[in-house]
Amino acid sequence: MLKLKKRKNMNIANLRASQLVSNISKKLHSFYSGKIEIVPKCKIKDFRDFAFWYTPGVAEVCLDIYKNPKLVYEYTNKWNSVLIVSDGTRVLGLGDIGAEASIPVMEGKALLYKYLGGIDAYPICLDTKEESKIVQTIKILQPSFGGINLEDIEHPKCFSLLNTLKKECHIPVWHDDQQGTAIVILAGLINSLKIVGKKVSKIKIAMIGAGAANVCVCKFLAIYGVNLDNIIMVDINGILHKERFDLKLCFEQWSLALRTNIKNIHGGIKEAIENADVVISLSTPGPNIIKKEWIKTMAKNPIIFACANPIPEIWPWEAIEAGAFIVATGRSDFKNQINNCLGFPGIFRGILDVRAITITDSICIAAAIELASCIDDNKICPNKILPTINDWKIFPRIAATVGIKAIKEKVADRNLCYNEIYNNAKAIIKRSRLITKTMMRKKYIKNAKNKM
Amino acid sequence: MLKLKKRKNMNIANLRASQLVSNISKKLHSFYSGKIEIVPKCKIKDFRDFAFWYTPGVAEVCLDIYKNPKLVYEYTNKWNSVLIVSDGTRVLGLGDIGAEASIPVMEGKALLYKYLGGIDAYPICLDTKEESKIVQTIKILQPSFGGINLEDIEHPKCFSLLNTLKKECHIPVWHDDQQGTAIVILAGLINSLKIVGKKVSKIKIAMIGAGAANVCVCKFLAIYGVNLDNIIMVDINGILHKERFDLKLCFEQWSLALRTNIKNIHGGIKEAIENADVVISLSTPGPNIIKKEWIKTMAKNPIIFACANPIPEIWPWEAIEAGAFIVATGRSDFKNQINNCLGFPGIFRGILDVRAITITDSICIAAAIELASCIDDNKICPNKILPTINDWKIFPRIAATVGIKAIKEKVADRNLCYNEIYNNAKAIIKRSRLITKTMMRKKYIKNAKNKM
Repeated sequence: MLKLKKRKNMNIANLRASQLVSNISKKLHSFYSGKIEIVPKCKIKDFRDFAFWYTPGVAEVCLDIYKNPKLVYEYTNKWNSVLIVSDGTRVLGLGDIGAEASIPVMEGKALLYKYLGGIDAYPICLDTKEESKIVQTIKILQPSFGGINLEDIEHPKCFSLLNTLKKECHIPVWHDDQQGTAIVILAGLINSLKIVGKKVSKIKIAMIGAGAANVCVCKFLAIYGVNLDNIIMVDINGILHKERFDLKLCFEQWSLALRTNIKNIHGGIKEAIENADVVISLSTPGPNIIKKEWIKTMAKNPIIFACANPIPEIWPWEAIEAGAFIVATGRSDFKNQINNCLGFPGIFRGILDVRAITITDSICIAAAIELASCIDDNKICPNKILPTINDWKIFPRIAATVGIKAIKEKVADRNLCYNEIYNNAKAIIKRSRLITKTMMRKKYIKNAKNKM
Repeated sequence: MLKLKKRKNMNIANLRASQLVSNISKKLHSFYSGKIEIVPKCKIKDFRDFAFWYTPGVAEVCLDIYKNPKLVYEYTNKWNSVLIVSDGTRVLGLGDIGAEASIPVMEGKALLYKYLGGIDAYPICLDTKEESKIVQTIKILQPSFGGINLEDIEHPKCFSLLNTLKKECHIPVWHDDQQGTAIVILAGLINSLKIVGKKVSKIKIAMIGAGAANVCVCKFLAIYGVNLDNIIMVDINGILHKERFDLKLCFEQWSLALRTNIKNIHGGIKEAIENADVVISLSTPGPNIIKKEWIKTMAKNPIIFACANPIPEIWPWEAIEAGAFIVATGRSDFKNQINNCLGFPGIFRGILDVRAITITDSICIAAAIELASCIDDNKICPNKILPTINDWKIFPRIAATVGIKAIKEKVADRNLCYNEIYNNAKAIIKRSRLITKTMMRKKYIKNAKNKM
């Protein structure tokens, strides 16, 4: 009885806290009416300067680029510009709410890109859901940008979209819900395995959910050394196996159905979890998607990543009660947040700074390993498997690692050394944070009233 | 001989000055590598604020917009965002130099939008020249923007493009090379006519060039009260008249061929200018496109707008020597600059602030009249027919006039009074200029070296 009451109270407290955050968030959004703006980044001492920035002076600058297209990276902001693009079909956990309603998320992402990565990201929401039109639009938009960040696009469309764009675009294309999430999860797993002392090649993993993120996690796990035989994936229709012909419509999911689950286990989440060392869940908002009693059937020192938002598939305290040794969620108010913000700002900083033409899987793995190593081994513990975004120096580190990897993979157009990339990234990111401070101190960003 | 030598020297001096501007411009573009950037415009005191700006807090903000789409104007930056879009087919006087090479111009435009109008304009250059693809792309891009600014797109495509988009978009669409230029020319003409004391309905006008700008100038002149019978237009193949069947391919030009030039005069620029009160030339870079001796055949107190860039169709001093009473050009280094920057920042400020769904011709005419009235009648003189952008208070005035006109025309979604629009616009524009100053003072915008 006592336990039940405690649980109920925590649920209520949680709901109240979350309602409070929502209410404040609405008031703040309404107060600022937009989270980013455009400002000059060149000198304007008086109006005569426009003769250099616009006509007549700009004409020869244009002609220079016409003659030597690469100069666009020297003369314009292309080198630092990323297109954040969504069709609004899978926004957060809200589903298909359309382009307009997804703008707050994309503006938020642009805010994070600038504040954490020093990158100018343009939040663009598309008034179409047709894959061919999305592809065509993004390809047409390439000239002004150094990279593309796909965001909150439903699956299976997101898989083919990313594949097509990676092939057909001449600038790097990224889907943060695939690579971004997968990198942070892999980093968290790397450190978790250090704690429990298990070998990558030996572990058994249950993956709950077979959407954009988990499909990519699975790919990265395999590259990192996890044996696909020992992975069991579950989607809404149960465990993926060789007779799941319903999956043939999606190449990525069908491949995994064929390649994972060597023992051909059938069933649902319960059966997938049994004997697993690790659960990686990116599925349906909980709680009670993963049950306590199932965790009790896992191997020793269970590792649980329950990443559904806003409510994890199992509350962390319940998982711990059931014997979980390490629990991570998507939330900032619990320990071990699996937070995409740990990845994309540094990764794209590095990608842009070496002018990579693509983001290979090896680059992603290198980023994950670097992110994991941002905490010293002797500081890792079950409650601290990942750094937090408070530690902003992780971003230049990841940028430099990513940049160097891109150069080694021969997908970069600039040849720089680690320190050059690191110091440059650090300076750009620091400047970004200082600008925000100045904007607040000078009241260009007004202080929202206390009630918010 | 002396005159010839003087002319030659002025030409050489001019070329040298223009080369100097180009060289400095290149160095500056290379130094800053981009003219605009994105910065936060909401408070970020610490990382906990991201819970409001991103997940989980943002979710309910999105749902609110999903339920009530108009909230997108309250919760996001859509209300202040303009898409500057070009296919790079008619960049300045440079012609079709492509998307990448046009970025410096579009970034310059975005700089002007922010500095003069307080507007966040996104410079987007399209990797296609196909009209249907441009239309589709722009329509798909609407959700994030409050308005569309077409720029540097070749004619006749630009005419049909603007017409189609005006019909099919739910946000206002503007082609600055059409309406923007035409408004400033009309304003200049209004004040010129005050000086020479001629009646609008009586004047004869020769229009040299029948491209995007002059076609729109002609339309606005007719609305303003000029008798189309008394307008003679000339394009590269001579005067427009009813037997110019080559023009049938372009609806706009063919209409003008049928409706202007009642006397059915044939010939070229020479014949068009004879007896004209006004020459409005937006044609081929000069000098010597318009000859001195032709100006001598004009009516009393000739008004010459020779607006080709970078070199006007006739040098101002030559026109004056030949008897011109008022001369305007496109250049900032001569008196009476016809400068688009006098128009679009204030116009779009007003359009955005009342949430107009379109920019009607009447709004354009009202903007021109307001711009003209920004100089007191007793201060107008042949060397000063227009204000300059130094006088930044013209922008909130134009914004308020435009806003009120849009409300009267019932194309606005917000009902504000003149003072509300004016004061709001003034505050936004002032803030924009102060931010730039702060960015320079704090060295976020570094000072370019002295040699530049």
